[in-house]
Amino acid sequence: MSGMASSTFDLPEQIDTPTVVVDIDILERNIITWARRMDARSVGLRPHTKTSKCVQIVQRQVNAGVVGLTVATLGEAESLAAAGFDELFQAYPLWVGHSGRADRLRALHERVDFMVGVESVEAAGMLGAATRGSDRRLAVLIEVNSGLDRSGVEPEESVRIARAASDAGLEVRGAFTFGGHAYADPRAAPAAGDDEVIALSKAAALLSDAGFEPKILSAGSTPTAFHSARPPVTEERPGTYVFNDAQQLALGVADLADVALVVAATVVASHPDGRFVLDAGSKAIAADKPPWVNGHGLLPAYPEAELRSLSEHHCVCWTTGRRPAIGEVVAVIPNHACVVVNLVDSITVVSRGQMVDRWPIVSRGRNS
Amino acid sequence: MSGMASSTFDLPEQIDTPTVVVDIDILERNIITWARRMDARSVGLRPHTKTSKCVQIVQRQVNAGVVGLTVATLGEAESLAAAGFDELFQAYPLWVGHSGRADRLRALHERVDFMVGVESVEAAGMLGAATRGSDRRLAVLIEVNSGLDRSGVEPEESVRIARAASDAGLEVRGAFTFGGHAYADPRAAPAAGDDEVIALSKAAALLSDAGFEPKILSAGSTPTAFHSARPPVTEERPGTYVFNDAQQLALGVADLADVALVVAATVVASHPDGRFVLDAGSKAIAADKPPWVNGHGLLPAYPEAELRSLSEHHCVCWTTGRRPAIGEVVAVIPNHACVVVNLVDSITVVSRGQMVDRWPIVSRGRNS
Repeated sequence: MSGMASSTFDLPEQIDTPTVVVDIDILERNIITWARRMDARSVGLRPHTKTSKCVQIVQRQVNAGVVGLTVATLGEAESLAAAGFDELFQAYPLWVGHSGRADRLRALHERVDFMVGVESVEAAGMLGAATRGSDRRLAVLIEVNSGLDRSGVEPEESVRIARAASDAGLEVRGAFTFGGHAYADPRAAPAAGDDEVIALSKAAALLSDAGFEPKILSAGSTPTAFHSARPPVTEERPGTYVFNDAQQLALGVADLADVALVVAATVVASHPDGRFVLDAGSKAIAADKPPWVNGHGLLPAYPEAELRSLSEHHCVCWTTGRRPAIGEVVAVIPNHACVVVNLVDSITVVSRGQMVDRWPIVSRGRNS
Repeated sequence: MSGMASSTFDLPEQIDTPTVVVDIDILERNIITWARRMDARSVGLRPHTKTSKCVQIVQRQVNAGVVGLTVATLGEAESLAAAGFDELFQAYPLWVGHSGRADRLRALHERVDFMVGVESVEAAGMLGAATRGSDRRLAVLIEVNSGLDRSGVEPEESVRIARAASDAGLEVRGAFTFGGHAYADPRAAPAAGDDEVIALSKAAALLSDAGFEPKILSAGSTPTAFHSARPPVTEERPGTYVFNDAQQLALGVADLADVALVVAATVVASHPDGRFVLDAGSKAIAADKPPWVNGHGLLPAYPEAELRSLSEHHCVCWTTGRRPAIGEVVAVIPNHACVVVNLVDSITVVSRGQMVDRWPIVSRGRNS
């Protein structure tokens, strides 16, 4: 990452606050750059759309070249299917045992090429039962743990889950992993990317030996994407790269010039002790804060200011340097763009400091 | 707080997850109990409605007896005014200098008894200009810092702000403070309540001496409400008490039997190392976590489980004890109810384990 510049992109003169603002030029450049870089490695891109939840952004990703799209929830998949996207992977151990989920899964499966994650014998049985009698089998990827210790079986267990899936009438297309331990500290990404490759290689060898030829070996996150984009991995699932955020800056994945999303905020209080208050609290910029980022976000125009504490509608900043005037509108780079977008029903789109559009967040809050 | 019982309230058999579930019986008991306890102290209740953002809950608070309602944003005030509530205080240093805010303030002021916080000469001027020419003056309370060091002037500065407000054509009705440093650690509330009383007493004396007879001296938060409910304080503004949450349990403000809100979640993965995964991540239970709560929430049915790490759609729990089966639906008590409600468009209302209603969160996301 280069040194902190004085601004990311210009905000429109008249803007309500707090508002999520996306610069379309930086956004499109991020989308195209990543598609090209992944293509140069002959690895597919299946971007995670939970970051934007926005049809206009997903369409640009598709236009730049993808092998499919990733979603986190059935609700997100339903929103994208309704918008005409037809190749969707839910990278999640979907459980369809209750409350109409089986019917929703079946409807999606009949409508689009829907693929889901599986990491337990029980879920495999449920997924199979939900799609039994369909013209074709539901495709699954076995979720493998590569060190994050979240969901996912150890690579050695992948054949057991693949057999259960196959027995339940599912089509095992391969395996996936998420090296999210790349977020453990700012230097963890290269090793986490290696871990993804190692876990998927092990699972692939075992699945092949057992007769489950894996067509898809899917890895990835924004910090690990280029560390694991090599054989036998066939595709990567980064999400945040479309926007970037203070976490990605701290991880060295992006420069300030690559940050396409900020939250516009107004200075509502300013005190002689060096304290000033923004009207963007945890309900606007979210409370995500790993220990290795400094504060609750960044102010590119006031790089010395620390966003020290966050209430629901206040962000208290402290600085010993220059500070904004009361009433001034400032851009805040949030720590984690994905959760910020999920707080708003639409985003304001700007180009060269002018508002050019407003895009709905179609699957905001669709967590189930 | 009493020892951890095995459950809070029963969830309906068929429930989608993650879902915010409110037990109407506990909710109504909390509302009535607090109204009575405040009444017994002859202190008014002006509950903060940012917690629920829900007309059906606010109406129950009004029915139990209030001196008015508190909101955090103009958008929340507009939602409540549209629903027929006509005595609203925005406990926030509202800035109306740009983007149509002045018109929105003026419209609210003409429609309801709207009162706002002020803590700077600049904001006072803007508020006065926005409401100039109206039949009556806009009412303001001077925001005083009682130790949180967020917004608010020192008590000694209150007369300077009151004079600016008066000069700008505003009606100074008194002062308010928020002893949010009650959340600094589990034993901080009594002293923070004292700080509220001290700060408001100082401001009141100075305002009186300067001819601004304060009719309203407003304090409060759920943890400090009963510590500062004494003269000269005239009213309290607690919010979270309607639901309670893991923070309030840790602060000793509520017992498990008083928790009226949980997030229903499904166990989507379970591993022999003691790890299990819920489908309620930071987009469902929010990432708020003060250092003095243990984990990202509580599972009353599995009190030994620690909710150790949170992704957007995964909560990874660890236990050395009994743990739920895969597919089981469990109740999660979130750390901070106010931000959880802001993530959903509606809440599921239950009574004795049966779903009885679904209430919209009318001002979800209305941050400006």
